[in-house]
Amino acid sequence: MSDFKRLEEADLMPLALGAALLGTGGGGNPYVGMLRTRELLRKGAKIEIMPLEALPDDAWVAECGGIGAPVVGVEKIEEGGECHRAVMAVEETMGIKCSAVISAEIGGANSMEPIIVAGLAGIPVVDGDGMGRAFPEVQMTTFFIYGAEPSPAAIADEKGNVVVFRHVIDMFWLEKFARDVSVDMGAGAGFATAPMRGDFVRRTAVPGTVTQAINIGNTVLRARAKHQNVVEKIVEETGAKLFFTGKISDIERSLSGGFSRGKAKISGIGDWAGSEAEIAIQNENLVLWVDGVPVIMVPDLIMNLELETGEPITTEMLRYGQRVAVIGLPVHDLMKTPRALEIVGPKAFGYPDLTFKPL
Amino acid sequence: MSDFKRLEEADLMPLALGAALLGTGGGGNPYVGMLRTRELLRKGAKIEIMPLEALPDDAWVAECGGIGAPVVGVEKIEEGGECHRAVMAVEETMGIKCSAVISAEIGGANSMEPIIVAGLAGIPVVDGDGMGRAFPEVQMTTFFIYGAEPSPAAIADEKGNVVVFRHVIDMFWLEKFARDVSVDMGAGAGFATAPMRGDFVRRTAVPGTVTQAINIGNTVLRARAKHQNVVEKIVEETGAKLFFTGKISDIERSLSGGFSRGKAKISGIGDWAGSEAEIAIQNENLVLWVDGVPVIMVPDLIMNLELETGEPITTEMLRYGQRVAVIGLPVHDLMKTPRALEIVGPKAFGYPDLTFKPL
Repeated sequence: MSDFKRLEEADLMPLALGAALLGTGGGGNPYVGMLRTRELLRKGAKIEIMPLEALPDDAWVAECGGIGAPVVGVEKIEEGGECHRAVMAVEETMGIKCSAVISAEIGGANSMEPIIVAGLAGIPVVDGDGMGRAFPEVQMTTFFIYGAEPSPAAIADEKGNVVVFRHVIDMFWLEKFARDVSVDMGAGAGFATAPMRGDFVRRTAVPGTVTQAINIGNTVLRARAKHQNVVEKIVEETGAKLFFTGKISDIERSLSGGFSRGKAKISGIGDWAGSEAEIAIQNENLVLWVDGVPVIMVPDLIMNLELETGEPITTEMLRYGQRVAVIGLPVHDLMKTPRALEIVGPKAFGYPDLTFKPL
Repeated sequence: MSDFKRLEEADLMPLALGAALLGTGGGGNPYVGMLRTRELLRKGAKIEIMPLEALPDDAWVAECGGIGAPVVGVEKIEEGGECHRAVMAVEETMGIKCSAVISAEIGGANSMEPIIVAGLAGIPVVDGDGMGRAFPEVQMTTFFIYGAEPSPAAIADEKGNVVVFRHVIDMFWLEKFARDVSVDMGAGAGFATAPMRGDFVRRTAVPGTVTQAINIGNTVLRARAKHQNVVEKIVEETGAKLFFTGKISDIERSLSGGFSRGKAKISGIGDWAGSEAEIAIQNENLVLWVDGVPVIMVPDLIMNLELETGEPITTEMLRYGQRVAVIGLPVHDLMKTPRALEIVGPKAFGYPDLTFKPL
């Protein structure tokens, strides 16, 4: 196990920053989860980051993350054990014990949730995830896209309620049930899907995303420390591209069916003076239009940064007058196959007229 | 086991009729369940009705019933195995096998559901239930009122989906979760609560209600065969009292939050000519007002019968112009304690100004 990286307290801030960026506006703010993780580390928890390729074929890997509307997470603080209780419920249901845990989505708060489970359960967290970004719905992971069993899965709240989806006929029913129970639970809960075997996870996970997030975060922190232009540095070092700079001129937000939905309009400044951009939101940024032309669309990553500081802005923190840079990053190839696009392409998000054009 | 009555095909029609009447307008129509039960009997199933007092102390008793909006049941026909799958899920979760099954509510369709489970599982059905009538919500059983564990419970649909409420902190959370999942399942599903021990069921069940329903049904059928006044005969032989006769002059119905809700107005005829009555509905008949005065209220039973035939009318079958007799029947004492009235009294149904006055 010598090639496992041990998670240090110094990794947490960069991880939170990088994960917020990969959250493409959604996935919730990793801040509270970061505090929980720090608390665990300070109490002596040893949390290892396991390379994807180190997973034995027959290992059981738990997949988990928070489920709910990110905007709710701002006020409804997690108790901390939600995901762990959900994982224990699926383990109990299947009569197994998991030897590692992996994030459903690296983007946002769900970068931290599996790490908390790893700390509580004393197992490593896998360096990878099921999205390589954030997405709003349960079925939108590479695991489900490539055939993971939709049940048993479980959801747990901070009060002690645990609901097990014992048999569901497909991942869409799982999303439906889990979403409605999460709304009952106050639109924020811990969620675990059926543990998967190591060989399946090796084939289907987006690899290396925990370290990718830490690296992005370190890029930001280094640039800030050196008083460099953070947005430029991110673009230079991550393969992202700058697509727009402007000022938020309008923001519409509603909470419906357990999701944060909305639209942000941006009036161009700098190189984009005179142009207008619009971003569609369902928890995450879905599509960027510049002057009416769609230029980035799901599953590629659309990220709003504060123009001056390079701080990623989650959709719930967008506000009128904010000066932002919009950058785009190509999603992992596993998310761009025809099979994947059926689940996470623009049509799946209710844009029948958009055909995915990769960055 | 010689004092167990064996359920015969000839019992089914009276049971359905009596259960529809005890359904106080709700509980769904037992017709489809009656056909399923008849099919089981014709295939050779031996279904015994077990007296409540014959339950051994340490027997595990399954409690089950359909959950959903009765009005949906008119179009969405049950597959037949829903309750049985829900019972099996709670058995599996607890690692036990039940030796008898009892109805959550004798009123309406849930008179038949446990009998179908009894037939499928090869165990007897207990002569009793958890309501002595029908009620719209999960926590409104004598079992929950007197302290039954709210979890594990399970819900199953006709497609194969099974959701287990593994831990819920109280019966109100169980109602909330189960209701919303039942709506996802199409507002009609099979539901089973945590199996209870025989001694607890003996203390808390409303006794003898399966045979009571069969007896009421036989009263109706005999009166019809003899061309007697059925409403009069029911009043004579069941201890019920006639409270109003009239013509439905207005009916309001909506389906919200998984419930059928509404109001029926009735213009008096016969002895009540010139009077106006109103009945409030949440799946079942909740309160009867005559000329603005509340004369019967939950948990006492309010039943609408077709004036000429004595046929019980479920709330979803009420229609403009129908001529009805409204009769009232006192509920079992277990439903009238202060503890019970907190859960099933008029205040619990949203009538803060009504204080329960028993018939």
